[in-house]
Amino acid sequence: MTRVVALSGGVGGARLVRGLARVLPPERLTVVVNTGDDFEHWGLLICPDLDTVTYTLAGLSHEEQGWGLAGESFHALAAMRRLGQEDWFALGDADLATHLARTQAWRRGEPLHAITAALAAQLGVGPRLLPMSDEPCPTRVVTEAHGVLSFQQWLVRHRAPAVREILIPAPPPPAPGLLEALADAELVLVGPSNPYVSIDPILSRPGVRQQLAGKPVLALSPLVGGAAVKGPLAEMMLALTGAPASQEALVAHYGGLLTGLALPAGERCEAPLALLPTDTLMRNAADSERLARELLRFAERAS
Amino acid sequence: MTRVVALSGGVGGARLVRGLARVLPPERLTVVVNTGDDFEHWGLLICPDLDTVTYTLAGLSHEEQGWGLAGESFHALAAMRRLGQEDWFALGDADLATHLARTQAWRRGEPLHAITAALAAQLGVGPRLLPMSDEPCPTRVVTEAHGVLSFQQWLVRHRAPAVREILIPAPPPPAPGLLEALADAELVLVGPSNPYVSIDPILSRPGVRQQLAGKPVLALSPLVGGAAVKGPLAEMMLALTGAPASQEALVAHYGGLLTGLALPAGERCEAPLALLPTDTLMRNAADSERLARELLRFAERAS
Repeated sequence: MTRVVALSGGVGGARLVRGLARVLPPERLTVVVNTGDDFEHWGLLICPDLDTVTYTLAGLSHEEQGWGLAGESFHALAAMRRLGQEDWFALGDADLATHLARTQAWRRGEPLHAITAALAAQLGVGPRLLPMSDEPCPTRVVTEAHGVLSFQQWLVRHRAPAVREILIPAPPPPAPGLLEALADAELVLVGPSNPYVSIDPILSRPGVRQQLAGKPVLALSPLVGGAAVKGPLAEMMLALTGAPASQEALVAHYGGLLTGLALPAGERCEAPLALLPTDTLMRNAADSERLARELLRFAERAS
Repeated sequence: MTRVVALSGGVGGARLVRGLARVLPPERLTVVVNTGDDFEHWGLLICPDLDTVTYTLAGLSHEEQGWGLAGESFHALAAMRRLGQEDWFALGDADLATHLARTQAWRRGEPLHAITAALAAQLGVGPRLLPMSDEPCPTRVVTEAHGVLSFQQWLVRHRAPAVREILIPAPPPPAPGLLEALADAELVLVGPSNPYVSIDPILSRPGVRQQLAGKPVLALSPLVGGAAVKGPLAEMMLALTGAPASQEALVAHYGGLLTGLALPAGERCEAPLALLPTDTLMRNAADSERLARELLRFAERAS
């Protein structure tokens, strides 16, 4: 079985990883997760993408929504509102436990990769989850309307206003083991995540792009018919490139990194790389598993 | 109207204070609350007695239980258990909001008395609530079975094992405004709280006993028929004094501080101070109000 590293943001990446986890033995799969969206809220360290991947792999996530826990309640949020506290980011009651446990360990000085591994193990997650870095590397979004915003302020508080630029801090190094996992990988899969704010932060960790050079790197496109399956990617591509979102623009954005692309059947991509036309939507775990199998077969054919 | 300072632990003190708040204008009542039980749990600063008094005055407390919020849920606790975290102290979901808001302000460097005032104001509490100190002054309990325990470890985790000694840290000064409130008070009321672990910590703040000298100080006895209305006071008195719990032992413990005592009708107390025999049980807000009125009248007669 192939040794796979998957690069993931939140919901889309988590859904692909769920399929990979059903097909690959756990020791063959490492998931590298964007932490550029991480932020402190209510005094707690929140890692939205890590939690989405963890909950999804643990079978605990809210199926339709894609993020958060199934059957979640929001009594703490209501009480925070009563106390005049910030209520623009909806943390659920059970979800709070994750942030409390993580923040406590983090304040004790435990590194994020160890905290992430411990939480995942407690929830019965098999594959290795790695935050892209142990250090904070907050992605910032430059907007016309509100100036420079942290990612969650941009996405959740201000509901994704028009973007002029994405700022990703260069220095913090990748988490321990990340470069080794990439060196060891026989296949790298890029989740159907937003390339600008979910995958670029991972690729910006020092040493990561170098490790990927020469590897088979397949991406599952987040675009269907020129729009994102989820989130404001199409608007972002238009604003940042001046051209409408397209499979070619996606491939071009990755700058020669990709060796193959899975895209919706019937869509065209003129870029010079291997193509896998298929149904790219993952409505449920069976879809995720089907796509994971197709991508692994595609990788075998393409190599 | 008399200017009153009430000294309070948790449930019993909160119930008396609820009555006082119905009888006195808010600006005439200051409640000084024990913080010797405060501790950190799940990385949050928990102040059980402050919260009990705040919730009770806000009309939000769980009526039968006396502490915690009415209609509370425990989804975060269940999720903490799933994550292998400590689950011996049951923090409710809505209650968590209080601890999150307080801890966040506290880590920013705000003093506890200001945080307490802000939380109380948000919940519509009129009278001034003062923690006995802005600094941590953790009460410790020396036990045969488990050595030295923090208060909540002793009470909740180990379910109040036999006590050999109570250790109250002497140095931390009273909260700003506390000595002034006592100096200004025309009447001091001691709630029906445990004298050893709820009232002694307040009395141990430097300067407090001096301010009380010469003032009318009336206590509502926590004892009914030689047992505590709530909690392990009788066992503690027996263990620490070698004699069964009694009204005389209670008065003696306060060492000349009290000028009057409200005790259950029909009970005797040979100590040389004014007595108010009455129904001391506070089953509901009406009982609290009746007792508050009786104590204020008793104070007028006794002066």
